[in-house]
Amino acid sequence: MTDVVQHILDDVYALCAQDTSGAVADYIPELASAEPERFGICLTTADGYVYEVGDTRVPFTIQSVSKPFTYALALADRGEEAVAAKIDVEPSGEPFNEISLDPVTERPRNPMIIAGAITAASLVAGDTPGEQFERIRRSFSRFAGRDLELDAAVHASEAATGHRNRAIGHMLRSFGVVESDPDAAVDLYFRQCSLTVTGRDIALMAATLANNGTNPCTGVVAADPVLTERVLSVMTTCGMYDGAGDWVNRVGLPAKSGVAGSVMAVLPGQLGISVFSPRLDGHGNSVRGVLACRELSRRLELHFLHVGRAARSAVRARYSLVDAPSRRRRTASEQRTLAERGSRARIFELHGDLLFSAAESVVRAVTPAADETPPDAVVLDMRRVDDVSGVARSMLDALADQLRTAGCAAGLVDPRGTMAHTVSTLADRNGSGRVFATLDSALRWAEDVVLDRWCDGPRQATEVSLAEHPVLAAATPDHRDGIMALTTTVRHAPGTVVADVGDPALGLALVLSGRVTVEFVSDDDVVRPVSTLSAGMSFGEIPLVRRSEFGLRITAVEDTEVAVLAPADFDRLRVEDPAATADLVITLLDRAYEQVETIVGALRQRTT
Amino acid sequence: MTDVVQHILDDVYALCAQDTSGAVADYIPELASAEPERFGICLTTADGYVYEVGDTRVPFTIQSVSKPFTYALALADRGEEAVAAKIDVEPSGEPFNEISLDPVTERPRNPMIIAGAITAASLVAGDTPGEQFERIRRSFSRFAGRDLELDAAVHASEAATGHRNRAIGHMLRSFGVVESDPDAAVDLYFRQCSLTVTGRDIALMAATLANNGTNPCTGVVAADPVLTERVLSVMTTCGMYDGAGDWVNRVGLPAKSGVAGSVMAVLPGQLGISVFSPRLDGHGNSVRGVLACRELSRRLELHFLHVGRAARSAVRARYSLVDAPSRRRRTASEQRTLAERGSRARIFELHGDLLFSAAESVVRAVTPAADETPPDAVVLDMRRVDDVSGVARSMLDALADQLRTAGCAAGLVDPRGTMAHTVSTLADRNGSGRVFATLDSALRWAEDVVLDRWCDGPRQATEVSLAEHPVLAAATPDHRDGIMALTTTVRHAPGTVVADVGDPALGLALVLSGRVTVEFVSDDDVVRPVSTLSAGMSFGEIPLVRRSEFGLRITAVEDTEVAVLAPADFDRLRVEDPAATADLVITLLDRAYEQVETIVGALRQRTT
Repeated sequence: MTDVVQHILDDVYALCAQDTSGAVADYIPELASAEPERFGICLTTADGYVYEVGDTRVPFTIQSVSKPFTYALALADRGEEAVAAKIDVEPSGEPFNEISLDPVTERPRNPMIIAGAITAASLVAGDTPGEQFERIRRSFSRFAGRDLELDAAVHASEAATGHRNRAIGHMLRSFGVVESDPDAAVDLYFRQCSLTVTGRDIALMAATLANNGTNPCTGVVAADPVLTERVLSVMTTCGMYDGAGDWVNRVGLPAKSGVAGSVMAVLPGQLGISVFSPRLDGHGNSVRGVLACRELSRRLELHFLHVGRAARSAVRARYSLVDAPSRRRRTASEQRTLAERGSRARIFELHGDLLFSAAESVVRAVTPAADETPPDAVVLDMRRVDDVSGVARSMLDALADQLRTAGCAAGLVDPRGTMAHTVSTLADRNGSGRVFATLDSALRWAEDVVLDRWCDGPRQATEVSLAEHPVLAAATPDHRDGIMALTTTVRHAPGTVVADVGDPALGLALVLSGRVTVEFVSDDDVVRPVSTLSAGMSFGEIPLVRRSEFGLRITAVEDTEVAVLAPADFDRLRVEDPAATADLVITLLDRAYEQVETIVGALRQRTT
Repeated sequence: MTDVVQHILDDVYALCAQDTSGAVADYIPELASAEPERFGICLTTADGYVYEVGDTRVPFTIQSVSKPFTYALALADRGEEAVAAKIDVEPSGEPFNEISLDPVTERPRNPMIIAGAITAASLVAGDTPGEQFERIRRSFSRFAGRDLELDAAVHASEAATGHRNRAIGHMLRSFGVVESDPDAAVDLYFRQCSLTVTGRDIALMAATLANNGTNPCTGVVAADPVLTERVLSVMTTCGMYDGAGDWVNRVGLPAKSGVAGSVMAVLPGQLGISVFSPRLDGHGNSVRGVLACRELSRRLELHFLHVGRAARSAVRARYSLVDAPSRRRRTASEQRTLAERGSRARIFELHGDLLFSAAESVVRAVTPAADETPPDAVVLDMRRVDDVSGVARSMLDALADQLRTAGCAAGLVDPRGTMAHTVSTLADRNGSGRVFATLDSALRWAEDVVLDRWCDGPRQATEVSLAEHPVLAAATPDHRDGIMALTTTVRHAPGTVVADVGDPALGLALVLSGRVTVEFVSDDDVVRPVSTLSAGMSFGEIPLVRRSEFGLRITAVEDTEVAVLAPADFDRLRVEDPAATADLVITLLDRAYEQVETIVGALRQRTT
């Protein structure tokens, strides 16, 4: 089956291969001898998957594509301030090999021109040039995910002919920009440029930059995320020499080109691209490299300023307890109160990545208007949120604080710990209970907040007698007595597993007092809470009726009394007292349908 | 309640207000008389919400902040190529008011320096300078969402003293860059610079750029999205004069500054910022403007190259029919086949925005390996996908085509029409039926695909007799006869609404032949399909048992025969034949619990 992405790459390749303009660099014989028709494109995703076409495994010297990586290393070794004192970050508007410094600052204009690159190399840590070079080679190798080596012939040739670069070195020394032996600094730069790479290597180095500085294949950290951002910034404004403006305009990817014919481009967070084709244009950039990057950017919509769609709110849905009650059974007075006051608890379902703008839309939606009474409770449902940035987290923290100050309880549904930091903050400040693994538990909590404030009538009982249990309450007294006679009451201490996944049917279990948790246990033993049952509730109906195994784990969380109608006794009842059986089963059916309706209601809400 | 975002803005404001360095522009008296202590920050979201602090409603002249907008207008009026022939897009590395052109191209280096801005103004359509100015004024007003006006005093003063700019005008004329009267072009530029705005205006103009060129408050299109991207590109490399590199490095927002003391910055897709404070630094940028933008970018993490998190796949979950069967009842032979072959249909649940990289991860996940037999069916569940870019859409189209060529059926769950284009494509090519509103309908379809290929045994019946109907099949023959005697059989023509939302309980309805659809109808009359019921299935149990109204709409889609046990007859049965009632209700309970288990299973999967 032809690969869809591969097909696009092949197409771009075929188009760009037709362009045979430009000329191979010829200032040293080793570059002049390059096969001009060589052409390879490689695209590596930020998770390390490689697409390639053409000559992507042919070795060539890295040349100026080395500059961002040495700059990153200098920043790591000396710190941003020390490096900024030596090298500016301004586009030069001059050819890359100008023998001049900025007349005002007396510094190289940026690390992507040769003067800046030699300075950056000189700043790499190491007691000797040999140590410095080894440090550079190892750093590059971390980006590439394999051990890179020097092309001695190219290095020798550069060293023999690089008079202009030596002139730049001495100029840098005379202005005190380079503080060590300028010939050694220039030679270090020559060696760095003579490291051998392939198109695949460059694409993975680019993907490592795209992946915040971590090599996606080896998992090794090649550069700190902050420095990666700095390097990508300089590549944006200065990477394509004096063609930088047109590049940003037409391609819109931080990039760097090298005189051997390679172009490296990065879409932060997403992918790295390398193109290799030795013929260069007047700027010194690979003709097909520029063309292929332009085509890929256009067809794949990679421009970093491209906005896919209009702004949208991070709030996917908002509703109140009136629209979506919890699954908990409530007394009549509780129901009345919730019908009347349920809108005082608001639930906001969020989605997407929460960076500043998204968090702002959440804060705006949740914050009550100045003339509005704050609600009793706010629940943020984070289950559809993918990522929360630092600023978004602190904004949501501040929002929760403000809500609490205004007398409004704040809860989070966050089973994956997306707001991990906030969870612990909340726990510290308020004890536990405001971060919930399920929406239903958050809704129950919000209902309790509203009820504590407004409900004067009878609240959910903490115990019921067997005769009062709602499953039996609808039966006629005769039928009820018949059923009660067949049940056995059992007491469970806290922590007792009453029924576990795979257990045979226990029978119909009616909770008379205490509390049990119902948990889902996955095959790999991940436990997730489903619900909590208290007096007046029941479990075990499904295994009883379907004669199936338990699919959930039931555990007593406090001293709990349960009346059980065992399967054999249920069968006996059915034969001996069919009318009582019909009473009981119709009640169970009613409760089952109620459950279906509640679940369907919840689903409906979620799929709107 | 204090606003969280407002608090951050206030904080940045207080910090930057401490800096009193720099000097007010003094080349004309009107600017020199500006109150140096004036300071305002305004942040407007891409959906038009405004945060502001300080002097955001004080009028000042727009000055160079006008340049990107006139450039956008010139691009719209003349086309990209014609404008590119006159103005380059390269950073100049020179002061903004240099009286020189690029020595090679003989063009102004970019539209953000004065030479480029005068050229851009001269390119605006209009038969007279007056018409051209009115066109500029109206365009700016669309960005600002209100009618902007000229400050005649500033204009007169600029006109009286702007000799350097006139010199630039004549230089442009002498090189043929400006083809009309250079004095008129320069005066047009002076007038454009003398339009009066406030910090709120500038922030909304920036937000309009952030919102793809559409003013979020008025909904008016001020510029085409493609041109907006071009303008933001030029602002990125050239917007902050010779401080552009440092700006990208430290702020990372496309921006433009003006000599009256304003700075405008844009985060594409998200927000616009304006800062106004008249004291300027050596580059001609507002001191507090630069400082405030730097602080806001740092605190709010607004750098456009900032990557919030490591790359992630757009595939949220993948499973097969074995893990998640549809809710349709299947015959024993069908069940056996699905147990054995169900993994031949694969479901991929996608999420987030699908741009190139996300679509690539989908294609990679779905495409079978070269040595792998393609599956029978693939379902892409798009319900959690927010936005699909053009390239992602065409990639998914191509993927679906390739799957079909390989003999694999491809279906989409896409109730919101996220893949609208594909829906019609699929319908054209294959007839309808491959785009589904619900996951369950897609699962049923995928099951049918697998069964058509692999199931030799009996398939789901197209009709059943009442005695064979599964709801009655479990009862003893005596009980069954008793129930059957109470039912009435009704035939419905295609299109008949059998029961509608709000209808009273109809009774237990057993489908004997034909097919009915079950639909959910929202309060605002949006209809969503829930399921299709055929022979052997039933409906109406819930309203019967709960004595509630119908919550769904049931419509016959073909000639359909339904046997109904009405509520009164059910009550009679309960009194006269409790054992038959118990039989019937236990069957219904079994089916209800099966439904609960299926729904819970589906939910479980979705929340993993």
